[in-house]
Amino acid sequence: MDYKKLIRDIPDYPVKGVIFKDLTTLWKNRESFHKSIDELIDMIKHIDFEKVLSMEARGFIIGSVISYKLKKGFVPVRKKGKLPYKTVSYEYELEYGKDQIFIHEDAIEKNEKILIVDDLLATGGTTNAAIELVKKLNGIPVGAAYLVELSFLEGRKKVNIPIYSLIKY
Amino acid sequence: MDYKKLIRDIPDYPVKGVIFKDLTTLWKNRESFHKSIDELIDMIKHIDFEKVLSMEARGFIIGSVISYKLKKGFVPVRKKGKLPYKTVSYEYELEYGKDQIFIHEDAIEKNEKILIVDDLLATGGTTNAAIELVKKLNGIPVGAAYLVELSFLEGRKKVNIPIYSLIKY
Repeated sequence: MDYKKLIRDIPDYPVKGVIFKDLTTLWKNRESFHKSIDELIDMIKHIDFEKVLSMEARGFIIGSVISYKLKKGFVPVRKKGKLPYKTVSYEYELEYGKDQIFIHEDAIEKNEKILIVDDLLATGGTTNAAIELVKKLNGIPVGAAYLVELSFLEGRKKVNIPIYSLIKY
Repeated sequence: MDYKKLIRDIPDYPVKGVIFKDLTTLWKNRESFHKSIDELIDMIKHIDFEKVLSMEARGFIIGSVISYKLKKGFVPVRKKGKLPYKTVSYEYELEYGKDQIFIHEDAIEKNEKILIVDDLLATGGTTNAAIELVKKLNGIPVGAAYLVELSFLEGRKKVNIPIYSLIKY
């Protein structure tokens, strides 16, 4: 299936000079939504892990299906003020400023193997922050999976765990 | 399965006097995550529909799995500034102030049957706003599904389409 035909380019979003990859056009189509996730699952189903950790909000769309299909637990990572219980946080640099992500302090057990899932890999900044959260809770990040990878940003080189992605630019 | 034992009560969140139902403790458990969604799917699989429409961000966790399992398209409804293409919006009243939700203007085809999915039904305000968005795009809202329903808030009485929920308080 030619997924790239179903992904919409949005020029100058969120800032001038960036071409945003809009996956909503891939997801509204029942065939491409289902088949793309199935193909990504085929790439990662050999991995031994206990929980999926996904980043708010688009990451949830892929991560929850992977959790469900492979019968794993699901853990959301969220922005400030969105998780109701006690949290652990990590602050990281973006191209434009700083960001901070949060996880419930009891979301991961010691030595639990965690697969990180997001919709898209760009510079790897968010993934590395998620890896730090897993380590803070004494979990073991065993891999990271994405529907789309922006290879030209070389995020893969900056992330220190195995990376799996289905659609590459 | 006694799901209520796996749902965490958070007193006085987000505001004093409210007991928030924290579903992350249900979702991190691989058995209850999988089984609760399966049971909800059993309740709605007879419905004839083409797409799931889900509300940012927790709604995505349930809605995307339902889309995947029943081989439907998936459409995200989001907060301001989160969708990159042209949007249609709807403003609605909350207990404390106003909120506004957005959908891509090409997310739904004319006369397409839409199932609305969220993690939790409270007063029904967000669901009614989602129904308005579907109608603005000439779609047909055919039902709404939730893992949890706060029956004492009587949201069901305010929503004008069939409601399906698995865990009731």
